[in-house]
Amino acid sequence: MSVLYTLDLVGTGAFAASGAVAGIRRKMDLFGVMVLGLVTAIGGGTLRDLLLGDNPPFCFKNEVYLYLALGVSLLTFALYRHMTAMHQPLLYFDAIGLGTFVVIGTEKALHFDLGLLGAVIMGVITATAGGVIRDVLANQIPLILRKEIYASACLAGGTLLVLLIQNGLPRPMALLIAAATVIALRLLAIRFNWALPRALD
Amino acid sequence: MSVLYTLDLVGTGAFAASGAVAGIRRKMDLFGVMVLGLVTAIGGGTLRDLLLGDNPPFCFKNEVYLYLALGVSLLTFALYRHMTAMHQPLLYFDAIGLGTFVVIGTEKALHFDLGLLGAVIMGVITATAGGVIRDVLANQIPLILRKEIYASACLAGGTLLVLLIQNGLPRPMALLIAAATVIALRLLAIRFNWALPRALD
Amino acid sequence: MSVLYTLDLVGTGAFAASGAVAGIRRKMDLFGVMVLGLVTAIGGGTLRDLLLGDNPPFCFKNEVYLYLALGVSLLTFALYRHMTAMHQPLLYFDAIGLGTFVVIGTEKALHFDLGLLGAVIMGVITATAGGVIRDVLANQIPLILRKEIYASACLAGGTLLVLLIQNGLPRPMALLIAAATVIALRLLAIRFNWALPRALD
Repeated sequence: MSVLYTLDLVGTGAFAASGAVAGIRRKMDLFGVMVLGLVTAIGGGTLRDLLLGDNPPFCFKNEVYLYLALGVSLLTFALYRHMTAMHQPLLYFDAIGLGTFVVIGTEKALHFDLGLLGAVIMGVITATAGGVIRDVLANQIPLILRKEIYASACLAGGTLLVLLIQNGLPRPMALLIAAATVIALRLLAIRFNWALPRALD
Repeated sequence: MSVLYTLDLVGTGAFAASGAVAGIRRKMDLFGVMVLGLVTAIGGGTLRDLLLGDNPPFCFKNEVYLYLALGVSLLTFALYRHMTAMHQPLLYFDAIGLGTFVVIGTEKALHFDLGLLGAVIMGVITATAGGVIRDVLANQIPLILRKEIYASACLAGGTLLVLLIQNGLPRPMALLIAAATVIALRLLAIRFNWALPRALD
Repeated sequence: MSVLYTLDLVGTGAFAASGAVAGIRRKMDLFGVMVLGLVTAIGGGTLRDLLLGDNPPFCFKNEVYLYLALGVSLLTFALYRHMTAMHQPLLYFDAIGLGTFVVIGTEKALHFDLGLLGAVIMGVITATAGGVIRDVLANQIPLILRKEIYASACLAGGTLLVLLIQNGLPRPMALLIAAATVIALRLLAIRFNWALPRALD
């Protein structure tokens, strides 16, 4: 499915850039920045494939993901001082990645005969685990556990996808609707500063 | 084995509550609290199944574990202010989970033909890795690496189980004796503040 | 290949000692020190085998690695006060481990039909992931992401190995040349304080 693959690559690049930026801010050297870019971009799908038992993970079967993530990380390292103009576009690309990764992960899990809750969890893992590993390596509490509508948008999108497929919608249409929903939720959350409640507020 | 399964669910719930509490204390939002509850409850068994190559991990085969862990985390989030009365009971439930997870993990590893040391390590991983992931996500040095007789009780229980089975004891009896030993050690350690030595004391 | 296996065990012991020392410095108890020694020594190869789908990982097939890592960790714990004389030799042993682990991991990945970039990444993971897990558990930003020519020496060695094998060199010779290159680079980097650039310098 060619539209989805294109969006997948856009998301991979955006995630790699966010990982590389995190590494630069934590004063890592070139190698560290490239590792952070790489694990942010491919960490979620890799963990999903480990859990599904689909070895080796997707990015070792199609190395385009590896070259793309490393290339973007290198570019980010080289051009960091000139990247302020990229801040806003990167948020959009990141949202595209989020929506795409969720639906790819959820649908793959359904193919592997997981239950409905399990499939949604796999979608959320695909979209968020890379960022979690990035933050753990940067020695910070993962952002998605603390802030904003981010993982919750993934949860909503994965659930929607499962419901649409359950109700007989053709897969390509279900995938695009669910991905678009995640992207829209995420952009609205950024625009209006939505957040989830905390127990200790 | 129905007694073991019941204890397993009790432990799963107790571990989920401890994860959720850690998330609340670190000011995570609702999503973060549920993630922490979930990974604490199912992280150890999931890592064990990844290492054994038993895909997908147990909780994706029987989603009861997922629903239970998420349900308890949600409850903990909602009722946190009223939970001081639960502090003591939760320590007992946690000890039950510890003992049950060790014997389940060790026995499963023996079924997968691991060696004796490997099987004991799998038991310890089953019981403790969830708590380690919880602490890493909360950006703290894992508690079990620093404090109290906790993992060491697991180590003793796993070793005992291997010895009992090696010596021909019927498995159900060996499992219950080993689990009870872990639980008793753990409760005694809490009661009398036992601790392991450190090199720099 | 008996030379490689010997070097592999030397490296395993050196990595275990470095993990145990990190645990002692972070005031972990005996159990924590042994866990840190163990995961540092076997974490990289274990993650590689998980990714390749070779279950259970190497150290559960040949428990010598487990006994060696735990034994060295225990010794380190017992003799820590008297170990200043060991500081220099341990750096050499660590470099030996680094070079050996890279070539073992890269070659194993080629056997599993990974692509060239994937194989080099597997070599780097084999040599460095144990240290990364050690630092994450000790709640620090992984050293290799921040400092010195360490992971980059692995990257160079893995790439060299792939090129040599591609060009038809007999494997034993290619393995030894690549491993020696990593060890030499690492020792030169220590001697002359080489470092990679950072974006924010």
